[in-house]
Amino acid sequence: MSDIIVQKFGGTSVADTTKIKSVADAVIKEKELGNDVVVVVSAMGHTTDYLVKMAKEISEKPSAREMDMLLSTGEGVSIALLSMAIQEKGYQAISMNAMQIGIITESVHQKARIIDIKTDKLRKHLDDGKIIVVAGFQGVTEDGEITTLGRGGSDTSAVALAAALRAKRCDIYTDVEGVYTTDPRIVPCATRLKQVSYGEMLELARVGANVLHPRAVETADLSKIPIRVRSTFKLDNKGTLITGVENMEIELSQPVTGVASDLSQVRIVFCDIPDVPGNAAKLFGTLAKENISVDMIIQSYARTGNNTNDIAFTIDKADLTRTTQILESIREDLSAGAIHIDDNIAKVSIVGAGMVDRPGIAATMFETIAKMGVNIKMISTSEIKISCLVEKKDSDEAIKALHTIFNLDSDKIAVVKGDLPNI
Amino acid sequence: MSDIIVQKFGGTSVADTTKIKSVADAVIKEKELGNDVVVVVSAMGHTTDYLVKMAKEISEKPSAREMDMLLSTGEGVSIALLSMAIQEKGYQAISMNAMQIGIITESVHQKARIIDIKTDKLRKHLDDGKIIVVAGFQGVTEDGEITTLGRGGSDTSAVALAAALRAKRCDIYTDVEGVYTTDPRIVPCATRLKQVSYGEMLELARVGANVLHPRAVETADLSKIPIRVRSTFKLDNKGTLITGVENMEIELSQPVTGVASDLSQVRIVFCDIPDVPGNAAKLFGTLAKENISVDMIIQSYARTGNNTNDIAFTIDKADLTRTTQILESIREDLSAGAIHIDDNIAKVSIVGAGMVDRPGIAATMFETIAKMGVNIKMISTSEIKISCLVEKKDSDEAIKALHTIFNLDSDKIAVVKGDLPNI
Repeated sequence: MSDIIVQKFGGTSVADTTKIKSVADAVIKEKELGNDVVVVVSAMGHTTDYLVKMAKEISEKPSAREMDMLLSTGEGVSIALLSMAIQEKGYQAISMNAMQIGIITESVHQKARIIDIKTDKLRKHLDDGKIIVVAGFQGVTEDGEITTLGRGGSDTSAVALAAALRAKRCDIYTDVEGVYTTDPRIVPCATRLKQVSYGEMLELARVGANVLHPRAVETADLSKIPIRVRSTFKLDNKGTLITGVENMEIELSQPVTGVASDLSQVRIVFCDIPDVPGNAAKLFGTLAKENISVDMIIQSYARTGNNTNDIAFTIDKADLTRTTQILESIREDLSAGAIHIDDNIAKVSIVGAGMVDRPGIAATMFETIAKMGVNIKMISTSEIKISCLVEKKDSDEAIKALHTIFNLDSDKIAVVKGDLPNI
Repeated sequence: MSDIIVQKFGGTSVADTTKIKSVADAVIKEKELGNDVVVVVSAMGHTTDYLVKMAKEISEKPSAREMDMLLSTGEGVSIALLSMAIQEKGYQAISMNAMQIGIITESVHQKARIIDIKTDKLRKHLDDGKIIVVAGFQGVTEDGEITTLGRGGSDTSAVALAAALRAKRCDIYTDVEGVYTTDPRIVPCATRLKQVSYGEMLELARVGANVLHPRAVETADLSKIPIRVRSTFKLDNKGTLITGVENMEIELSQPVTGVASDLSQVRIVFCDIPDVPGNAAKLFGTLAKENISVDMIIQSYARTGNNTNDIAFTIDKADLTRTTQILESIREDLSAGAIHIDDNIAKVSIVGAGMVDRPGIAATMFETIAKMGVNIKMISTSEIKISCLVEKKDSDEAIKALHTIFNLDSDKIAVVKGDLPNI
């Protein structure tokens, strides 16, 4: 029995018919190696933007269900065209959308999670020797409603398919050559990582490395499917392998694997919350119920005299309007004070499985930033990540300094074309 | 229980978001009359052309299955946008594609016929007060394969849905104000018909009246669903009603209802076919097996001496390449001679339920054409239609003369905007 390889090509890789033909070559190359191949594709280039623009012309707030119906058409186009391109080169191919396969999601529109993938039709087509071209980003509920998976959806589709089919590997083709120690736009001597662990990749993704969505990494981690991130247009480059195995060599020699900055957050300070048990739970419970993810949290010590706390936390910019509405609505209930918003911030993070039990790493990070005369507004840490909130203007310099101090600078300039990820 | 009205809007009616908003008004107007409304829409404007162009860039002969996957996305866009537009105006709407409804077709790609339509979900949504926006032109096989219905597909979808739901009426909205006695581009004083029978409409459609596809008319005739053809942009105009009831008044006063020309045919003469029983059957049987429709047929008398026939027939231009291939392949088997092709022809027809049992009508037609010095190359007749094949250059003059001789000229100029149908 052949190994199954799942490949995923994003929107820029299938942006026009010429590029689609190149993708067909990459697909056939994998098939020629003797593998069964399942290819997941996104909508072509700017299709999604165009569809969203039309929807906005009709309604400021179009219904989530109809947005999913609208957006899911984008992948229908790219799977049909890629199948034709593969067939034109003399190989058998068949396109399938989420409804045809049975990529079952929960009944939530625009950010549904996959709960099951039917594999019977897929296995039959693979057994028949066909290359299967699958629409990414979309799913279907048990009731036959079309859903979409939200940001990073096609990556998640690919990894989930790989898991369902027990694939040997999931290859994410993109317009960069792999995962870098940091954003080569900021640090030209950034180094491509040959290998990185799920945990490290997850933290890197969470702190702004757009190369792979955290949901996809989580899904891969759960099923232990190795992911390879590689360039669509440079097939000789092996890219970066993301696996469950920690890279011991790097761990011993390099405590830090990557450095990244996240400019999408905004800091909120909710002042003068009475220091009563349950108030913080009420605040964050309400936000959680509204599906708003909170990242860094700091609660100040209760001030002497008035017995109140200030609670500072960061959220994604996209959630700001809804968050302030929620805070206003519970302010009276909490007898709380003013709400301050600061969107002039950047979260600078270092990530590495090698930093566990090396207390010197955090100190080196703080010291490096302090030496630049930059004030650290908030700090958060995990097993393999340390993040510092700084002013936006200081972000790039901090990244450069940290990249150097943790020995990540390459002796050669990173050659990366097209849209670059944040790491 | 409310009456159900099925409406159908073609590609030009939903060509952009502004037009989609106008369509939403027309839909809501029908709903406000107290009816349950099901709306069938085609792909926006030139979407289909654009998709076909991309497919042709990839493959000269893309697979029919993948073409259906590709083209079916077009309606996915328009149903989502129209649903949003209706919702934006404060009404409940839900879009549904063929797979979600269960518009079951035979397993043929690019020209599938509908064999069943599931109505349970449709009825549930109508009972909930929702306006249902349905993707026209597409179907799904029992195996979950996406199919398309071919030319006139959305009209057929609308009429078939009306039949399945036992609708009161099927309104075909188009960019003309109804069905005319002939093409107003050729005869400016063409008259809009208030009413026309299924049979007449079928013949008119078959001889080139693009306003409604013959398949849609046939489907309506079978289920006796009245069709109203009317303008999207002039909602005060009542259009033309197509019903099973012959319009007795017109029948008595006007033997001919309409005049039309069809420029899409090509005449083939297959020479020197030995006059042996079964040869004609072999010829037309082979063409039928390849799904090629033959229209007019003339077989010459066997010539003295060589005992062979010439068989002349007309087919659609689109089938020419395949037809000549087939003829070449059976020529030896039939011991037949040369194949002559003439695409410089037009089929000019008069249609009217009132011409039954009035032998003078045919004579008047032939005489009128003869007086113009025009040679008639072939003739075919049915109960309610007489067609003459003439040279293309004589077509318009023949139409004008016939329109006048059969008293169809209106005393006022037909006011018709946009793309005009052939009648």
